[in-house]
Amino acid sequence: MSWGLENLPYGVFSRNESEIPRVGVRYGDHVVDLAGALHDEVFATGSLNAFLSRGPAAWRDTRAVIQNKLSTDQTAVEPHLIPLDQVTLHLPIEVADYVDFYCSLEHASNLGRMFRPNEEPLKPNWRQLPVGYHGRAGTVVASGTSIVRPSGQRGAGLFGPSAKLDIEAEVGFVVGTPTALGDRAGRFEDHVFGVTLVNDWSARDIQAWEYVPLGPFLGKSFATSISPWITPLAALSQARVAGREQDPEPHDYLRRQERWGLDLSLEVAINGEVVSRPPYRDMYWTPDQMLAHMTVNGASLRTGDLYASGTVSGAEPGERGSLIELTWNGTEPLKLPDGSARAFLEDGDTVTITATAPGPGGAVITLGEVSGTVVPAR
Amino acid sequence: MSWGLENLPYGVFSRNESEIPRVGVRYGDHVVDLAGALHDEVFATGSLNAFLSRGPAAWRDTRAVIQNKLSTDQTAVEPHLIPLDQVTLHLPIEVADYVDFYCSLEHASNLGRMFRPNEEPLKPNWRQLPVGYHGRAGTVVASGTSIVRPSGQRGAGLFGPSAKLDIEAEVGFVVGTPTALGDRAGRFEDHVFGVTLVNDWSARDIQAWEYVPLGPFLGKSFATSISPWITPLAALSQARVAGREQDPEPHDYLRRQERWGLDLSLEVAINGEVVSRPPYRDMYWTPDQMLAHMTVNGASLRTGDLYASGTVSGAEPGERGSLIELTWNGTEPLKLPDGSARAFLEDGDTVTITATAPGPGGAVITLGEVSGTVVPAR
Repeated sequence: MSWGLENLPYGVFSRNESEIPRVGVRYGDHVVDLAGALHDEVFATGSLNAFLSRGPAAWRDTRAVIQNKLSTDQTAVEPHLIPLDQVTLHLPIEVADYVDFYCSLEHASNLGRMFRPNEEPLKPNWRQLPVGYHGRAGTVVASGTSIVRPSGQRGAGLFGPSAKLDIEAEVGFVVGTPTALGDRAGRFEDHVFGVTLVNDWSARDIQAWEYVPLGPFLGKSFATSISPWITPLAALSQARVAGREQDPEPHDYLRRQERWGLDLSLEVAINGEVVSRPPYRDMYWTPDQMLAHMTVNGASLRTGDLYASGTVSGAEPGERGSLIELTWNGTEPLKLPDGSARAFLEDGDTVTITATAPGPGGAVITLGEVSGTVVPAR
Repeated sequence: MSWGLENLPYGVFSRNESEIPRVGVRYGDHVVDLAGALHDEVFATGSLNAFLSRGPAAWRDTRAVIQNKLSTDQTAVEPHLIPLDQVTLHLPIEVADYVDFYCSLEHASNLGRMFRPNEEPLKPNWRQLPVGYHGRAGTVVASGTSIVRPSGQRGAGLFGPSAKLDIEAEVGFVVGTPTALGDRAGRFEDHVFGVTLVNDWSARDIQAWEYVPLGPFLGKSFATSISPWITPLAALSQARVAGREQDPEPHDYLRRQERWGLDLSLEVAINGEVVSRPPYRDMYWTPDQMLAHMTVNGASLRTGDLYASGTVSGAEPGERGSLIELTWNGTEPLKLPDGSARAFLEDGDTVTITATAPGPGGAVITLGEVSGTVVPAR
């Protein structure tokens, strides 16, 4: 099964409203209550952060202990297995800083063509460094949170609810091990604990008007949804790939030391109908390179930092991770099987992003889903 | 005196390394230990955040109680007065999100002229909205923290320590009262507790290469210093001014309801020599407008959010708040009284930004200082 011993992602759950949320791992259709099963209060602190701050040796040991208990000591674990339908899932991490990158060559090229039609689609820096910017950490929300359609300026003299509400299907990376101010990060796997799915909701009309010269702000800051289960890197060992060839050769500090491309297959569904299948393995910049870049200037990392890949778009039209690409800025509306068409999102639409990865022995690792429903502007 | 009853800014201090830092107000050359003086453990929590989250009525009451105690009950306060030279000052707030605006017409125009010489200096959106972006909250540091010269890409194929390390003299606003996701903020004074001085250190060569199209990232994220004393808005009532006239008339949501321009006089010194006197009162966008803009899309506020004005630059050459403007991108180096010249900062340079405001009855409110010394790249 895809939520088996080879997976075991971490999340934060509660059984009722009065309980302080606790850390669990998903196993089949159950959650293992780790504070109980492992007799460790680090898992009773309301988020994954305290556990993440223990570092990679503790992450490895904990995973081994859980796998061992589940495979050899079911009776002891039994009292700590809670059916999934009896829990509420929460935002799994307390997000420290949130950085969003722009790592898909196809996505960056597509947006360049639409936003700056009279220029080269890629800026001169794009192949030299993973372009990124800071997003709003305080509006990273749990999957399932309603997304209020944002209002804002959509051009000179134009104010109102966004008429171009969009999604961005992304892969996010959760930092566990911090660094000191002035230092660079070390090896990717010593700092990054695991992977989450990200929907970086985007109001394209607000973004297009505001973003020069300092980048996206209100067009993005109203909400970013993440999936409830953080898949540890250890569960993705079969998914590791070399990463796309890069030309020109990257600077020394960006040179790949190990294979940290990831063969993740995403699916984007609107109201249950799959509209795109973005392949993460084809991304130009890999997550180890993003981490190296983000810290090369001495910027410190904190436990709970989240950084995302930017929209995952492949070369084929059916592999684009945003509506602005799928509908070419609304000019080629998507036809949904119910007969309706979408240029951008309508109130009531539910967007769900899922992903899977190859696991050991032909198993499939699922990364679960991130979902959200658009509600009308206030 | 400028640290008298009319001022009373809040900071966080400790008397030794083993003590959890505590909240105090500055009074003359002493710190009033509030946890002791007011018998309230909210002031013994390591940052101002817990107190700030109580909201504006608590801020008013607390200030009144402190003023009353200090003016009528000195004997009772005496045991809680600690000489300033016996304490270490810390980062006063746990920064939630950090947003940097771009509110000086002169600064934005100067940078437009330098970065985009063949275009109109101001982008079409600039007079329609306060342009802003998210910075890195995790690298907002206490005044006095050493600033490691950042390394990074400075152009195609160019990597190394920044050769254009700069400052930005700014005024920062500290949010106390949060909002819910999807809501807009209410009145400025119901959300914003007070004011801090900000030095938004900037590596101009890194910034110029990386910033298209998603805005500044590593050119800013290595460090942002703030002053240790947060001046409550209540101490700045005599400094309130109408704010600069705006053309065109701003959108409804940006219309000023009250006078929240502030007559703050900044001074920037390098190694003790004043090189600029930026006037905050001349800024185009006022802090109430920044708050309204930041939340018009429903982005929530958290206690500890910090937003800054952007570089404060006035119309006169001696009023510019960054070296890139003072030296016109290094082409007109500053001559310092010691005979040396500066295009940008050198290792060992100490930059100190101070500010004052008019207080009641001709008194001067000082906002203290934010200071930092550049140390060599690692």
